[in-house]
Amino acid sequence: MQELARRVSEGDRRALAQAITLVESRRADHRAEAATLLETLEGGRQALRIGLSGTPGVGKSSFIEAFGKLLTGQGLKVAVLAVDPSSARSGGSILGDKTRMERLARDPNAFIRPSPSQTHLGGVARRTREAVALCEAAGFDVVLIETVGVGQSETVVAEMTDLFILLLAPAGGDELQGVKRGIMEMADLILVNKADGALKDTAMRTCADYAGALRLLRKRPQDPEDFPKAMCVSAEEEMGLDDAWAEMTRLADWRRETGHFAARRAQQARHWFEEEVRQGLLARLVSDAGAKARMEELGRAVAEGRAAPGKAAAEMLAALGAGKD
Amino acid sequence: MQELARRVSEGDRRALAQAITLVESRRADHRAEAATLLETLEGGRQALRIGLSGTPGVGKSSFIEAFGKLLTGQGLKVAVLAVDPSSARSGGSILGDKTRMERLARDPNAFIRPSPSQTHLGGVARRTREAVALCEAAGFDVVLIETVGVGQSETVVAEMTDLFILLLAPAGGDELQGVKRGIMEMADLILVNKADGALKDTAMRTCADYAGALRLLRKRPQDPEDFPKAMCVSAEEEMGLDDAWAEMTRLADWRRETGHFAARRAQQARHWFEEEVRQGLLARLVSDAGAKARMEELGRAVAEGRAAPGKAAAEMLAALGAGKD
Repeated sequence: MQELARRVSEGDRRALAQAITLVESRRADHRAEAATLLETLEGGRQALRIGLSGTPGVGKSSFIEAFGKLLTGQGLKVAVLAVDPSSARSGGSILGDKTRMERLARDPNAFIRPSPSQTHLGGVARRTREAVALCEAAGFDVVLIETVGVGQSETVVAEMTDLFILLLAPAGGDELQGVKRGIMEMADLILVNKADGALKDTAMRTCADYAGALRLLRKRPQDPEDFPKAMCVSAEEEMGLDDAWAEMTRLADWRRETGHFAARRAQQARHWFEEEVRQGLLARLVSDAGAKARMEELGRAVAEGRAAPGKAAAEMLAALGAGKD
Repeated sequence: MQELARRVSEGDRRALAQAITLVESRRADHRAEAATLLETLEGGRQALRIGLSGTPGVGKSSFIEAFGKLLTGQGLKVAVLAVDPSSARSGGSILGDKTRMERLARDPNAFIRPSPSQTHLGGVARRTREAVALCEAAGFDVVLIETVGVGQSETVVAEMTDLFILLLAPAGGDELQGVKRGIMEMADLILVNKADGALKDTAMRTCADYAGALRLLRKRPQDPEDFPKAMCVSAEEEMGLDDAWAEMTRLADWRRETGHFAARRAQQARHWFEEEVRQGLLARLVSDAGAKARMEELGRAVAEGRAAPGKAAAEMLAALGAGKD
């Protein structure tokens, strides 16, 4: 384990991939090894964690490839992770195929990792947080965590990143409604992709529409006056990516100076602590043999109509010493 | 409490409304009273529980009004409840305004109850299940539980009903994609509303499209061969509602005869028992003063960087006697 930790901290990509496989494993002995590894590596290095959300069709892979190449071209090391709770069902819709980012995948300063195939969002979230920590320990400067808009996955990604970017495709004014208000509110930056060729004018109009919509949202007192903002980019023509990156670093620097960067990380750490306690508590219902047997027994009584659900639940909670609800 | 129970079981609508207010309350003394009330009333009567999902714009209110009047016209007593976890935020989009179902609301054999205004879906689910039990105890023959398509709310409604109906508006072939596969798979009956006037032809085409799509889904061995099925209705012209009701009763009767009706209720009871145990266990983290203080203390240590989230969580779980995750 010390050997793996050393190789990860030296930035060895194969060791990093191996370490991530370890944290993704659900085997108890792997979990224990992963905990030791994380503890050994914890602290020290900090990457800029960027969340990126975009539905299929907005050109997310092309954007990540072009944006990632821009960053590695500046000498930065870039890791790309994915949160996609549906990937097990859909057969890995995002990043399932590294060939979609062939150039970036071959770049020695880039590291691409598909979403772990778990159907449970809580499990994916935990593994991804641990993978982020490993990428930071491996010396990556930027960790990009991408997600496709499925239910709660944006919220999960926003809760583990420093900046949250929403990538959109050019669209007519009516379709602006399609983006859920809650997701708009999470975004620090909206990027309208495909601002090239025949779509250029539409992209610019879409961008203006979203800029208008963003002005209607509540201002965030901790951010510069012009944030959140909307910008046009073209992954295809590699246009606007440097401007987008400049805005991201400006916002991150501002937040670092005002202390909001550290405050956000502190709040996120607390959130994940609470979430792990909740998950661990629920896990007891299946991992503890006695509790599991009692659940089974009461569950059968309820199913057979010999006990009411509420009453049986109260009995189970009393048995768990959890008091009354 | 005995007095309230007696009045509810006599079908007194004001007493029923009062009892539902009691189960919706989060005050500890109200919770205890509600538990006693439910225990007193439990068992005996059984209504047909119908789940109804439809996004805004499909004419859900008009459908419920026309369908409800059809049933009360046959001498049946009908209760309408709503599950809308977003109602607190949106200002009660569904059933917030009883005037949208004015005729049904005035019907002595109907009872309409808006969604409790709670943001937490788990809380809404529990209150709604208890309200269903009260409606059954009050002698209602049909309990209609409506929901608007927000995230998990359809699943919650399907888990507490005997039949699940999906109400749709006429739409072009391409828009068929808009209905999530998971929701299609839950539906026993798809009703295409607004099959009247200029939309009649579109409605019939939409209906045929969905009938085709349903045939592609996995068959349910426990149901008659022609289920799940799609039908056209017009709430406006009160057309097809009697046919839809005939199909619902046919399916319910079939399931009763084959034992699947009882099996489904048994499985649902078990599900809600497990869910209540989980909720009760999590509630301990805030209701137990000692646990709450320890959570607070460890949460602060994590936020201040003095402890890692995972390690602090393990410590908290050990303190709760919950073993290791």
